[in-house]
Amino acid sequence: MHSATFVDIPDNSAYTFENLPYGVFSTADNVKKRIGVAIGAQILDLLAVKHLFTGPLLSEKQSVFSEETLNQFIGLSREYWLEARLTIQFLLSNDNPMLRDDSELCKKAFVAQSEATMHLPAEIGDYTDFYSSIYHATNVGTMFRGKDNALMDNWKWLPVAYHGRASSVVVSGTAVRRPWGQIKAEDDTEPNFVPSRLMDFELEMAFFDGGAHFRNGSDERLECSGHSEVGHFSMGRHDGSPSSVHRQRARPNFDIDLTVDIKPEGSDQSFTICRTNFRHLYWTLKQQLAHHTSNGCNVRPGDLMGSGTLSGPSPDSLGCLLELSWKGTKPVHLGEGGEMRKFLKDNDEVIISGSCKGPTGEIRIGFGECRGKLLPAHKRRFCATD
Amino acid sequence: MHSATFVDIPDNSAYTFENLPYGVFSTADNVKKRIGVAIGAQILDLLAVKHLFTGPLLSEKQSVFSEETLNQFIGLSREYWLEARLTIQFLLSNDNPMLRDDSELCKKAFVAQSEATMHLPAEIGDYTDFYSSIYHATNVGTMFRGKDNALMDNWKWLPVAYHGRASSVVVSGTAVRRPWGQIKAEDDTEPNFVPSRLMDFELEMAFFDGGAHFRNGSDERLECSGHSEVGHFSMGRHDGSPSSVHRQRARPNFDIDLTVDIKPEGSDQSFTICRTNFRHLYWTLKQQLAHHTSNGCNVRPGDLMGSGTLSGPSPDSLGCLLELSWKGTKPVHLGEGGEMRKFLKDNDEVIISGSCKGPTGEIRIGFGECRGKLLPAHKRRFCATD
Repeated sequence: MHSATFVDIPDNSAYTFENLPYGVFSTADNVKKRIGVAIGAQILDLLAVKHLFTGPLLSEKQSVFSEETLNQFIGLSREYWLEARLTIQFLLSNDNPMLRDDSELCKKAFVAQSEATMHLPAEIGDYTDFYSSIYHATNVGTMFRGKDNALMDNWKWLPVAYHGRASSVVVSGTAVRRPWGQIKAEDDTEPNFVPSRLMDFELEMAFFDGGAHFRNGSDERLECSGHSEVGHFSMGRHDGSPSSVHRQRARPNFDIDLTVDIKPEGSDQSFTICRTNFRHLYWTLKQQLAHHTSNGCNVRPGDLMGSGTLSGPSPDSLGCLLELSWKGTKPVHLGEGGEMRKFLKDNDEVIISGSCKGPTGEIRIGFGECRGKLLPAHKRRFCATD
Repeated sequence: MHSATFVDIPDNSAYTFENLPYGVFSTADNVKKRIGVAIGAQILDLLAVKHLFTGPLLSEKQSVFSEETLNQFIGLSREYWLEARLTIQFLLSNDNPMLRDDSELCKKAFVAQSEATMHLPAEIGDYTDFYSSIYHATNVGTMFRGKDNALMDNWKWLPVAYHGRASSVVVSGTAVRRPWGQIKAEDDTEPNFVPSRLMDFELEMAFFDGGAHFRNGSDERLECSGHSEVGHFSMGRHDGSPSSVHRQRARPNFDIDLTVDIKPEGSDQSFTICRTNFRHLYWTLKQQLAHHTSNGCNVRPGDLMGSGTLSGPSPDSLGCLLELSWKGTKPVHLGEGGEMRKFLKDNDEVIISGSCKGPTGEIRIGFGECRGKLLPAHKRRFCATD
């Protein structure tokens, strides 16, 4: 098969020529954080090739590739993102000698992923975490409020979210420490300050907000385009009972296969405990963003929006141990005859991965892997200094 | 009286020689954002005098005063902050000719506040809003859950907070637009998307977090100092019933007089509707920060912590219209025979100010003013683009 790019793409690589995800990385011999694009087992360093972004739009904005985060770049508009993508594909193309035959530049511009340290791709101003899988919301609601009150009254009227903490977002590979907190048992008279007992993961995906939805200092806001016939999105219910319904006409979601593995301490094997798909999301990303901004909220480039736990309809597609073990009542087996988990144990490593394929399987887009190990709680106690 | 500084301090100025608050400003003829200190009706531009920070610590860190926010400066430790304060007092001192007699430098270093545009002093990573006045929590709890359930069970065990949106924090003088949202009346079958009907202010103060409580990448955390005999703060109850109590020994809070005024549309007069004091806070700032970090949370320099609505015990010391009008049942008069308010009306301007005095009244620290006008809701409706 004729390869589209001169860069070697190993079999089953997540980072195909059709994918080209952005990231921020540094290397041991150059600790400056810089923007790159993953291709095969390499990173194309955009700082090293920024002078080659000579298209009509980006030729004036090459400085966005000198930044240490993607905020400036994603703060531009869709036309810039498209031009950037076309330029990168052009640079990597097998038919284009510009980079391919410039061995000096190639040496500077390509970095092996195995030699790179990844960093957060953007400075996250605010991080919103939605709750948009109806399977997840129904399961959790059933556990805590009973089957008849599982979904709150507003759940189908707007994409419920909580406001997460931007400082808590870390890159893959960062260990997470079991936190402390106050817990009061039913028959205790006072709460105790103890390490968390029931630690869980939640399988989510997230998107970064780009562009300016709310022009600073102006009264203008994101307006409808192309669907003047539709009502306000947030009046829409997917099941279509009320009259003023807005269902997105286009393919409502993305078809992305997702898995969660647990790798227990001391084991060199990981065990898949969840297989689900992004398409189970009830509220789409567009509806989430539209709801978020519809009240007047100032969303900024680099803001992060989590999907909510991506549980599907089947028992093996539930996106957290709370659901998989049904509140600890049905322990999950890690392989046949293996260890069991109600919740996470110290030093468990959680590995999330995702990928999607075109209808014939020829085009593959991988999201790579997101992994984190749960460290035991701190031994010591801490107090206010005075 | 001998004046401590050569800068003229107008009578009743908030910005005395003892005060010296930091801020970030720009001017029409120099739009670069720069760090300054308010003194009288002037701003001392720290960028213009940064070469004069020649103390043992800051001589190596003068670059923090070239930044466009205070994050780098407040990310240093207390010793640096003290040296900065001493240096600024030394520069402004009546007895020191260094700046006083250098008319060239003075011309560059002093900017009239009336000619400055203020900006947010820090890039806010995360913004936490506490709920730490027991009067406020009891009043609101009584309105919504009845007197017997006013305080939730955990309220006296930890300083309750919600996670605010960093993008929503604006500088004084920025107008605020009445938001839209979904509201469902009891007898409606469906919610309606309408502008908010009951808009309120809340009188709060806030502090910026400085220094590093949680050393990145390390297992070390804030440790107790000076009070090894004390237990974990968050086990403390102010009313002292349980045994393992930590009450802060020192003066638990700050004595700051606070007022809220409303200036209605078309009026050239503002009316004071609340007089309260910061000391009514039940949980202190130190307890708030200690609670926030005790679970392992990564708090960063520039993070903002709101106190919660600062209601006091008396009817005129309630810090929001919800309480002042008791959920709209007792309208508040704006002056004798003046307009009445249950909640804010469009184009009302809310003006919050604060100041404190030493015991003899000689030393005065003013916090200046924080004002914002409520603009009417947008007329148009918006929807998801597709």
